Amino acid sequence: MRPNSPKMALEHAGKLPVFLVTNLVHIRYLSGLEVSAGALLILPRSYRLFVDARYGEMARSRVRKAVHVEERENLREVLKSVPLCGCEAETVTLAQKQRWKTNFKNTKFVQVTDVIEFFRRSKDAEELRNFRRAQRITRKMFRRVPAVLRPGITERSVVWKLTEWAHELGADGLAFDPIVAFGSHTSRPHHRATNRRLRKGDLVQVDAGARADGYCADQSRVFFTGRKSPEQERVLAAVEQAKSAATSLVHTGVGTHELDRVARAVLKKHGFEQYFVHSLGHGVGLEIHEGVTLSQRRPDEKLLKQEIITIEPGVYLPGKFGMRLEDEIVVEN
Amino acid sequence: MRPNSPKMALEHAGKLPVFLVTNLVHIRYLSGLEVSAGALLILPRSYRLFVDARYGEMARSRVRKAVHVEERENLREVLKSVPLCGCEAETVTLAQKQRWKTNFKNTKFVQVTDVIEFFRRSKDAEELRNFRRAQRITRKMFRRVPAVLRPGITERSVVWKLTEWAHELGADGLAFDPIVAFGSHTSRPHHRATNRRLRKGDLVQVDAGARADGYCADQSRVFFTGRKSPEQERVLAAVEQAKSAATSLVHTGVGTHELDRVARAVLKKHGFEQYFVHSLGHGVGLEIHEGVTLSQRRPDEKLLKQEIITIEPGVYLPGKFGMRLEDEIVVEN
Repeated sequence: MRPNSPKMALEHAGKLPVFLVTNLVHIRYLSGLEVSAGALLILPRSYRLFVDARYGEMARSRVRKAVHVEERENLREVLKSVPLCGCEAETVTLAQKQRWKTNFKNTKFVQVTDVIEFFRRSKDAEELRNFRRAQRITRKMFRRVPAVLRPGITERSVVWKLTEWAHELGADGLAFDPIVAFGSHTSRPHHRATNRRLRKGDLVQVDAGARADGYCADQSRVFFTGRKSPEQERVLAAVEQAKSAATSLVHTGVGTHELDRVARAVLKKHGFEQYFVHSLGHGVGLEIHEGVTLSQRRPDEKLLKQEIITIEPGVYLPGKFGMRLEDEIVVEN
Repeated sequence: MRPNSPKMALEHAGKLPVFLVTNLVHIRYLSGLEVSAGALLILPRSYRLFVDARYGEMARSRVRKAVHVEERENLREVLKSVPLCGCEAETVTLAQKQRWKTNFKNTKFVQVTDVIEFFRRSKDAEELRNFRRAQRITRKMFRRVPAVLRPGITERSVVWKLTEWAHELGADGLAFDPIVAFGSHTSRPHHRATNRRLRKGDLVQVDAGARADGYCADQSRVFFTGRKSPEQERVLAAVEQAKSAATSLVHTGVGTHELDRVARAVLKKHGFEQYFVHSLGHGVGLEIHEGVTLSQRRPDEKLLKQEIITIEPGVYLPGKFGMRLEDEIVVEN
């Protein structure tokens, strides 16, 4: 949930008097403005956005009401008079910190993690509206896939079709480079589309999503262009069961690792656990991966209300084939 | 020029025994592989690429010969036994460094700048081939622009046309979100395309480029849909002269600030210097901005042979209109 006031953000940053936001996605989230360079300073009573002259005129016309737009040059002067300033540990590089040390000898920078990231996890009504639009467009895109899966089409052509449909359906564009894999390519979870042509009988994996007003959707489906082999039937059933078992447990407060554990337990029952080589899912929003990771490596992470996550179990049999099914869920209760 | 051997890279990194590359573009440059997560270790006799299981099968089939692909998990064990390791100061975040400190108590990480960045500046024959293909496609795209500039078309529709043409002409896609601005929108150097419709007489600014095998092209042109006003004539002449004056000075060893200075001097002569609010240009390659910046802020930077740069002077009259002309140049001699 977007901080109601700059003060609320500062409280979450350990009650620092000033907090310097340099992550550009965080700047977009707080200001509504997409810039390729800039910085946003959170002070107890104001947000001050520093952008260079290329953005000045545009910035003033589009920025959120609470944010004051200033010349990038001014940041230097402002920072010089700040004795203590929080900064983003996951964004600031070692080189950046070194430059600050040289330029701001009287300012102490305190590195803090999980400040704006934390607010971004729970989506507000406007964010959910954008996400749902991205999701609706994505569903429509997937409904168009079977019609183009005719022998001879290449993986790359399917990627381009997805791009065209996202545009036609009013999305900003695609949320990420889609994964389109035919036949044995499906055993590579992160396959990049090639000029391989579809052959009758090929299994097809598609992982794609539209972006709407910045918000990402993310969905995966498999398509069969011939009869499923008995092994394919078994894998599909296992992945479907893993997905629905994990999905049924989604609610506010559940451990993200718990969802992953349940999906893994279902796959184990079917003898496929060792072929599920990635985590069960991740948070989504302005970025295609943000917030939580549904994995055994995050034993303390719990879902928040109005968080958006993916559930995407997969089984990949090396040299043979793979399948992943993925949907997004808004944590409602 | 790609380092001939891992040893050459280490020598450039201040003769460190081991260097850890975490910048994903650098990993692509050295390994030929595009991954969304991973690390590459440079040792005196080998490159070792650590990627997770999602990439394993694919990585081994596509990686450059000199690079050995391993499980991501192994990196931990390898690093534990390294007493001294260089790392990328412009990439490693404060939080990352903190985690390394906790996990590798016996390893000292030394932050170094400009190691792989330096090699990337001078392009080799393969890189230049890819760039030239991107540039040829971009020129073809621009030749198609006038035909679609009919009254009623929106800025966003022109962006989509560029996207389609890049695809049709065999590019990977666009190198960046194109800037398409009509009429008074041209006074915003980084305008984002809107649904504004073209009106007869509008000035049109287009800044776009294709990407081919990862390499970016970047070009800007203005189009007139009516008679130029006397003021537009003056601005156009000034920008053209600034561009050709700077371009004629491009050669190995010239100061990047010198090119910027010459362009500014021409614009000053025409009375427009104060309306040129960005730097004259930048390096290009796998990234749309990489390497040098042609600006007064870089007094010590000199062009290298086979570097690719943009020359893009512009004049932006607030509330009225703006014009930018941009081409890329390979530093040949």
